[in-house]
Amino acid sequence: MATLEDIARVLGVTKGTVSKALNGAVDVSEAMRRSVVETAVELGYSRPRRGDEAPRIAVFITNMAYARPEDFGYDILVGFRKLAEPAGYQVQVIPLSIELEEDIPYEQYMMRHHYLGALFLGLSLRDPWLRDFETCTSPTVLYDNHVTGNPRVTYVGADNGEGLRLAVQYLKGLNHRNIGYLSSALGAYVYRQRYDAFFQAMRDNHLPCGRKQARNSFHQHICLDEHLPALLKQGCTAILCSHDTLACAVLERCREQGIRVPEDVSVLGFDDLPLCETCRPPLTTIRQDRTELGKSAYCALASQIEGVAPSTFLLHTELIPRASCANAREGELTIDN
Amino acid sequence: MATLEDIARVLGVTKGTVSKALNGAVDVSEAMRRSVVETAVELGYSRPRRGDEAPRIAVFITNMAYARPEDFGYDILVGFRKLAEPAGYQVQVIPLSIELEEDIPYEQYMMRHHYLGALFLGLSLRDPWLRDFETCTSPTVLYDNHVTGNPRVTYVGADNGEGLRLAVQYLKGLNHRNIGYLSSALGAYVYRQRYDAFFQAMRDNHLPCGRKQARNSFHQHICLDEHLPALLKQGCTAILCSHDTLACAVLERCREQGIRVPEDVSVLGFDDLPLCETCRPPLTTIRQDRTELGKSAYCALASQIEGVAPSTFLLHTELIPRASCANAREGELTIDN
Repeated sequence: MATLEDIARVLGVTKGTVSKALNGAVDVSEAMRRSVVETAVELGYSRPRRGDEAPRIAVFITNMAYARPEDFGYDILVGFRKLAEPAGYQVQVIPLSIELEEDIPYEQYMMRHHYLGALFLGLSLRDPWLRDFETCTSPTVLYDNHVTGNPRVTYVGADNGEGLRLAVQYLKGLNHRNIGYLSSALGAYVYRQRYDAFFQAMRDNHLPCGRKQARNSFHQHICLDEHLPALLKQGCTAILCSHDTLACAVLERCREQGIRVPEDVSVLGFDDLPLCETCRPPLTTIRQDRTELGKSAYCALASQIEGVAPSTFLLHTELIPRASCANAREGELTIDN
Repeated sequence: MATLEDIARVLGVTKGTVSKALNGAVDVSEAMRRSVVETAVELGYSRPRRGDEAPRIAVFITNMAYARPEDFGYDILVGFRKLAEPAGYQVQVIPLSIELEEDIPYEQYMMRHHYLGALFLGLSLRDPWLRDFETCTSPTVLYDNHVTGNPRVTYVGADNGEGLRLAVQYLKGLNHRNIGYLSSALGAYVYRQRYDAFFQAMRDNHLPCGRKQARNSFHQHICLDEHLPALLKQGCTAILCSHDTLACAVLERCREQGIRVPEDVSVLGFDDLPLCETCRPPLTTIRQDRTELGKSAYCALASQIEGVAPSTFLLHTELIPRASCANAREGELTIDN
């Protein structure tokens, strides 16, 4: 374990300067602070905690609102806090931006701000820190993202395999055999998981399933203008969507085109966002309990801190039946288009 | 929440009889005890704990030795106890048998013996309790088995997807492009997971992979007599095996037939059993840390008891390079057979 002296020796400065730099004193230049933190990370220095200070956990949130109860991140954060704070942790929410990530490597940020561990909500593939997660040593939990081979990083999310199995089983019970899958682009880890899980669920339920029964695009208008009509033309009696907002857009498009849901086609979403209850007809979906997800994220981080290295922590899903699914229609669907 | 009175009313007996039956008093007939426990389970009664009694957790072990340090279950049990006992739980090991499972439903067994939760090591598809897990209400953790849709059951195991990705990446780095996969029968959940993960890993690494590159059988002699020669004939320069004991049998078969490992063919296992170090040549494998698995099982059960319902808790894997893998040979392999 490196000491303050080791860092001072490497940099050729006094131990006092190192200490001040690590503690954020104003009379140390930004350049010196950066050198000290970089050297500390390289040498594997870890700062002892003062006895009276609650250990700090960072929750990074990006591209994802969390301030109001109807926002996706809100419940996750509430669930996380519900377990973390009684356990004695101080939870701080930090908006994540490309600028921040380009400015300082992840591990250095964690050390500079004395965070013991972190939860990330809403990372995208463009985030520069994604690469840092391959080698970081701070306990780190990623919502809906997986990193291979680093024991310090845990993926937390819903059990997409189970969710798709529940959805396909349910539709099969309503006599649907020709089920289409409509997805956002597969670059996002979670959409790739659900896409693969769809094929697996069809196989497990002994339903025929060619590659063309699952279609995806980054652009919602391509999903609606090209993929949806193609699936209907292939005779699909049910459309399973990768997430609720896409499913709601499908409902709206069907209404515009005089296609009746659920009489002509059943539609199913994933996530159980609040809008599922207010859209027309209300959307049958796979629920991922967001408060429970937040609690799971805490359990995963606590395991990390205890020295157990979970790779993946998935939460059970539940099928919520509403009005957008019914028995499969018999015969052809005629669309005026 | 049902009370002793509710049970007594349903059965038309006194509250004292119910209490005695639940506490295993000798002056209650076996038939009455069974009726009381069955009714208690049906009504959702849960027995209050006496203040001085440590809560009990059952570890069911079947078909799997655990008494000696070289046994597979031993380390898992040690890991589990390491976290469970300091947390105040009493851990009891129970040998699982078809007879026991046929004699009494799972939920009734748990209630009769006052277990708060359970871990299962080594279930097979023939176990009658497998069906009970679909609806049970006791917190239950299954090693290497997954049950869809019951929030009270958690699957704990190694991250097979990560393990296969690490293995394929490693072989690709050694210039292997034609990689074969040899597996035990896919009826076991874990072997099905690894089989699917092999194809996924090949796709992720942009390596060509037809269905015939992965072969499986319940019978090891079919794997060795038919599948192994077929894979070698297809030009595979590396054989990835679903588990170490199969990989070691492959090593032996190669030695018998004058096929040099790793010069002619590289062989990789999965699990990192102690025999990997003693076989010839020592076996490169994917490690699942058994002590950590036991700790994970405890973390999963503790989450359940806290009211968070994990579906899946996977542990990170690690590639352990030994002497059974080397750079891919160039050109054809001639086998005297």
